Amino acid sequence: MATIGIGMLGYAFMGKAHSNAFKKIAYITWPPPLEPKLVGIAGRNTDAVEEAARRYGFEYATGDWRRLVEDETIGLFDNGGPNSLHAEPTIAAARAGKHVVCEKPLGRDAVESYDIWRAVDATGVKHMCAFNYRFVPAVRLAREMVDAGELGEVRHFRGRYLQDWGDDASLDTWRFDVDAAGSGALGDLMAHVVDLARFLNGEPTTVQGFTHTFLPNRRVDDAVEAAVTFENGSVGTLEATRFAHGRRNALQWEINGTKGSLAFDMERMNELQVFRADGDRARGFKTVLVSEADHPFWQHWWPPGHIIGWGDTFVHELHHLLEAIANDTSVAPYGATFEDGYRAAEICDAMVRSGASGGRETITFRA
Amino acid sequence: MATIGIGMLGYAFMGKAHSNAFKKIAYITWPPPLEPKLVGIAGRNTDAVEEAARRYGFEYATGDWRRLVEDETIGLFDNGGPNSLHAEPTIAAARAGKHVVCEKPLGRDAVESYDIWRAVDATGVKHMCAFNYRFVPAVRLAREMVDAGELGEVRHFRGRYLQDWGDDASLDTWRFDVDAAGSGALGDLMAHVVDLARFLNGEPTTVQGFTHTFLPNRRVDDAVEAAVTFENGSVGTLEATRFAHGRRNALQWEINGTKGSLAFDMERMNELQVFRADGDRARGFKTVLVSEADHPFWQHWWPPGHIIGWGDTFVHELHHLLEAIANDTSVAPYGATFEDGYRAAEICDAMVRSGASGGRETITFRA
Amino acid sequence: MATIGIGMLGYAFMGKAHSNAFKKIAYITWPPPLEPKLVGIAGRNTDAVEEAARRYGFEYATGDWRRLVEDETIGLFDNGGPNSLHAEPTIAAARAGKHVVCEKPLGRDAVESYDIWRAVDATGVKHMCAFNYRFVPAVRLAREMVDAGELGEVRHFRGRYLQDWGDDASLDTWRFDVDAAGSGALGDLMAHVVDLARFLNGEPTTVQGFTHTFLPNRRVDDAVEAAVTFENGSVGTLEATRFAHGRRNALQWEINGTKGSLAFDMERMNELQVFRADGDRARGFKTVLVSEADHPFWQHWWPPGHIIGWGDTFVHELHHLLEAIANDTSVAPYGATFEDGYRAAEICDAMVRSGASGGRETITFRA
Amino acid sequence: MATIGIGMLGYAFMGKAHSNAFKKIAYITWPPPLEPKLVGIAGRNTDAVEEAARRYGFEYATGDWRRLVEDETIGLFDNGGPNSLHAEPTIAAARAGKHVVCEKPLGRDAVESYDIWRAVDATGVKHMCAFNYRFVPAVRLAREMVDAGELGEVRHFRGRYLQDWGDDASLDTWRFDVDAAGSGALGDLMAHVVDLARFLNGEPTTVQGFTHTFLPNRRVDDAVEAAVTFENGSVGTLEATRFAHGRRNALQWEINGTKGSLAFDMERMNELQVFRADGDRARGFKTVLVSEADHPFWQHWWPPGHIIGWGDTFVHELHHLLEAIANDTSVAPYGATFEDGYRAAEICDAMVRSGASGGRETITFRA
Repeated sequence: MATIGIGMLGYAFMGKAHSNAFKKIAYITWPPPLEPKLVGIAGRNTDAVEEAARRYGFEYATGDWRRLVEDETIGLFDNGGPNSLHAEPTIAAARAGKHVVCEKPLGRDAVESYDIWRAVDATGVKHMCAFNYRFVPAVRLAREMVDAGELGEVRHFRGRYLQDWGDDASLDTWRFDVDAAGSGALGDLMAHVVDLARFLNGEPTTVQGFTHTFLPNRRVDDAVEAAVTFENGSVGTLEATRFAHGRRNALQWEINGTKGSLAFDMERMNELQVFRADGDRARGFKTVLVSEADHPFWQHWWPPGHIIGWGDTFVHELHHLLEAIANDTSVAPYGATFEDGYRAAEICDAMVRSGASGGRETITFRA
Repeated sequence: MATIGIGMLGYAFMGKAHSNAFKKIAYITWPPPLEPKLVGIAGRNTDAVEEAARRYGFEYATGDWRRLVEDETIGLFDNGGPNSLHAEPTIAAARAGKHVVCEKPLGRDAVESYDIWRAVDATGVKHMCAFNYRFVPAVRLAREMVDAGELGEVRHFRGRYLQDWGDDASLDTWRFDVDAAGSGALGDLMAHVVDLARFLNGEPTTVQGFTHTFLPNRRVDDAVEAAVTFENGSVGTLEATRFAHGRRNALQWEINGTKGSLAFDMERMNELQVFRADGDRARGFKTVLVSEADHPFWQHWWPPGHIIGWGDTFVHELHHLLEAIANDTSVAPYGATFEDGYRAAEICDAMVRSGASGGRETITFRA
Repeated sequence: MATIGIGMLGYAFMGKAHSNAFKKIAYITWPPPLEPKLVGIAGRNTDAVEEAARRYGFEYATGDWRRLVEDETIGLFDNGGPNSLHAEPTIAAARAGKHVVCEKPLGRDAVESYDIWRAVDATGVKHMCAFNYRFVPAVRLAREMVDAGELGEVRHFRGRYLQDWGDDASLDTWRFDVDAAGSGALGDLMAHVVDLARFLNGEPTTVQGFTHTFLPNRRVDDAVEAAVTFENGSVGTLEATRFAHGRRNALQWEINGTKGSLAFDMERMNELQVFRADGDRARGFKTVLVSEADHPFWQHWWPPGHIIGWGDTFVHELHHLLEAIANDTSVAPYGATFEDGYRAAEICDAMVRSGASGGRETITFRA
Repeated sequence: MATIGIGMLGYAFMGKAHSNAFKKIAYITWPPPLEPKLVGIAGRNTDAVEEAARRYGFEYATGDWRRLVEDETIGLFDNGGPNSLHAEPTIAAARAGKHVVCEKPLGRDAVESYDIWRAVDATGVKHMCAFNYRFVPAVRLAREMVDAGELGEVRHFRGRYLQDWGDDASLDTWRFDVDAAGSGALGDLMAHVVDLARFLNGEPTTVQGFTHTFLPNRRVDDAVEAAVTFENGSVGTLEATRFAHGRRNALQWEINGTKGSLAFDMERMNELQVFRADGDRARGFKTVLVSEADHPFWQHWWPPGHIIGWGDTFVHELHHLLEAIANDTSVAPYGATFEDGYRAAEICDAMVRSGASGGRETITFRA
């Protein structure tokens, strides 16, 4: 079986999620498109990165990501480091001929994201921005239903990502460091909302809204609120916050169309709510447990009703990338490319501008 | 038992709802503060208003609302007519010394609403704008919890009113006639959202958003989308639409505070979702069936768990007004006064202005 | 409009529910089949029954139900008294030529129930046993779907009625008095479960189970548990309890058939869960808000999504009886006759016998 | 790090689930109590078992389970074969000094289960019967709450395991072969219900009920229905079926106690419904997302709200066994021993006897 060497930057939350995914791909997706070999893992905390290497089975740990870039046995560079470490290592890896996957947000703003995209795209390698929620079976099923015209003409998209861990002034992580993160809820959570809005409903055209910081000494935004219009004529609201007490990981969205509607909540990620305007006297939203043999990704898993977890979205995501590499097929449209990463950043930046100016911001994308 | 004569303008949807409420007040709330006597009902369609009189037991029907205003046996004028018939009859009734209740929206815009409020308030009668959702037991319970500080510092309010009957170009009612209605989803649905936002979370300070009309020949708005800030420092989104396929009467709101959160959906109006940040290892939202002996309005009803319906909110609302009349107490804060009706209109108008200008609109209220 | 005089025995919980229903029938169902006139109300507590007469508008109150039986202006005798007062007054009223409606359980056991049925049926009047849950719109919709074959071959029926108010040794009502009530959860709650099982799934053939009393000094049963088989080949479980802490009025049932399944919870009485085995890739239970124009009973009410309450089931029930009287049509199959009341008692008694003997009890009905 | 060699019998559904678990234990639980080494896998279909060995990384495949028993590098024998292959290989492995884990049901009836237990227990190895649902975080949390007295005096336990794949006469697997499986829904599904009943509520004392076969040519039961009493004085119902159309993997249970109640549905396995009778005016069941840092098993996983899947219950289960082996601690009470496997079989057999005799069966356990 053909293999691919993996070099990983970052060993914490995302490092664990991605390592787990590569290890499961080897036997849950069978046969895997390429067998991942965990070659090297990089990070600044020497003890931690060495323990991560032992834990996940990387051949070596390093304090310098450049060693991964230079390692010819590495074919895929996986960047799960802080946002400030997305641009340089990712571009360097691509220029060294490695395929690249980079966590979201791609850059700390639209300009940086654009630069990453253009620089990497110019090298010809495969690139994927790790918007893993595209790889929830219920989200993919939704996309397939949209593509098949099952919703008819879309009237509304409303999305929000609600968490509540941020309302604590004593917290201190890179996620609150404006230099390391670029932004707060905006890049961390709203980027996901925007990506799913684009994935399911196409491009937004205008936003009106603002970012907001609740805690006096916090240097990044805590929440984002916006009204939005879309190219397809639909309208809605977009929200992201780390201050919605009681909501742990509530990435919720709903689409309403003339033939049907869909609704989703990441806290019940195995379910899709499906409404069909089909004239059935029994009219209402179905709670669909997305775990049937003919549902997306389910060929890899268990009998119907035996649900999967959040970590498994990364299995699907990285499997998709390995397929694209193995078969030289496109990461798009099901996977997010770096262009998708850039476009999400462009839309997020428009929310910041709208907050500053008070005005409606038109979204324009650079080519 | 003291009685009060009721004169009603409008015999259709709201006429039925209000008549039913007055009839039930007489025995469900016991003893009633005043026994309502259904004296006269007015409307333009002679046959229909005469049948309504027979059906609900009014002593007479009339094609001219002025007869009600002149009828000295009438102590309370209840205006459930089209929006264009709110101002003149209501003001006339108040000037004739009758207490008044008027359906929402109070006027067709902020200017008309302001004029109604000031003219009526000057007469000294009791006035109530019929925002009946304040009288859902779950909503009143929420208000009591907010007032008691059980939510702590509020971070977010998000509200939306989703219906789906409007997406039909063949529909023809006064609700789509801009002269009769003033607006579409804005006055019909967003006014409710705004009133509950104010009732539960205080005054909004700014809005950014727009109204939107989907159907080419429709002369009123079909949907409204906005981002909002509040005086108490919280932020959120507000939405109203007649185009959310699959949602029938989904007036949904959620408040997140540092000590707790609440969520509600009018389609499950007997339930309040309650989250308390109390350190219980069993952390989550409770589904509270608001039907306990110590819950709001429940002294009138059944044993716990035996739920009430949408129509019963009007029983509570008009009972509250009769109490205010009987005891000469204030309609506020639990009931909406005409000032509340005006303020809701001011906020709705700001959304229209934001849509026109693209800019953030600051809310200011006239005294 | 033709009228019918109502004589009522009982003024408390059921007296309030039935009086409210008769008053609403007069205008919510329009035109009503017969206009109910509240003539007389009887009860042992003089002050209470007199206040009830004033409250609900009965022409007179009396301490002696025989006065109602002798009153020739009364055409319908409504018995909501304690179970021990079901037999004699109901039979006397029927023999006096009055139509009769009697609360469930019909008698305190199968023998008494049989005697009531046979005695009343012999007089030729209309008789209805007040199993009001047949008149929940979701339950009637379920019945219509079953009748239309939409479930295919039925495999399972499971029903339970869970309340929690009984777990308090200090409680003292006639419901715990074995002479007045005959039984506890059995006649109060299990009778409803059994009636809905019969209404939706046909006759049970055997039961195995028992009644159980938790509190040492309680003289009636607190809970009932049974396994059951049905004539149509389906099997399941039946349960009733006043000791399910956290459940207030949870009459829950589910039917599984080869073409579809239905599920219901009285705490969300406006909803029916509907599963159709129709091959749709989006497979799951729909949450149907039973409030559409073409749904049962909805011609009387509001626009879709504007839900009704527990009390309104009595409006439907007594309206159905008035239609049967006005048109001389059958109370069956949608309404429960006294034969249905007897049959429910026969099945409940079989559970008692199974508890005593430990054996499987075959259900046989007397003709 | 100390290692343990794994020998596995069975390569299909359970083989996949257990292999996945051993592979994840090595890095998700960190450091693992023992590092699992996948040594050998046995099965009758040569091609399939060889592919399984390649897929999951076993050193060798074999058509003869005796080779695993004889292999001195194997320290743990994992039996996921058909029920008819539970007794002999498991006993042989234990007698060869290997620790053993065996899928449920332990044997095909109580006699066989008893023999396995006694034979294996006599060898002194660790033994676990793979009732994996004990290792759902919500179930363990429930157990901890019960143990802490948070439910008070228990009144009810009701459990059911509803699936719907069995209603197809064309199906042909060893699960319908009475010799290979011993029983149908009884050993496959009811055994789980019974084990959770015992785990959460202690020993049943009597059952009344029956097994039922719907399809004419099927040689095993399709459904089981029973009423049950418990040593702690509580009562309830138990059900298992492969014929509940619309239910895919609905292992549902509810416990009601004087201080609180809990409810669970495996289709939403990350949630526990928690009711506390604590006098809070906001009274109701909480939807607890069991994913907090202080929740069972969560030290291994993700931030709150990032849920896990069905397959992960095996990670917890086999990790628990490895801990017991590494530290020479008891598998009980959180894990099911072979005695637990035997006791579940004893209770299931009592249901069969009750079905045959019609009588109430008292549960007695052999020592």
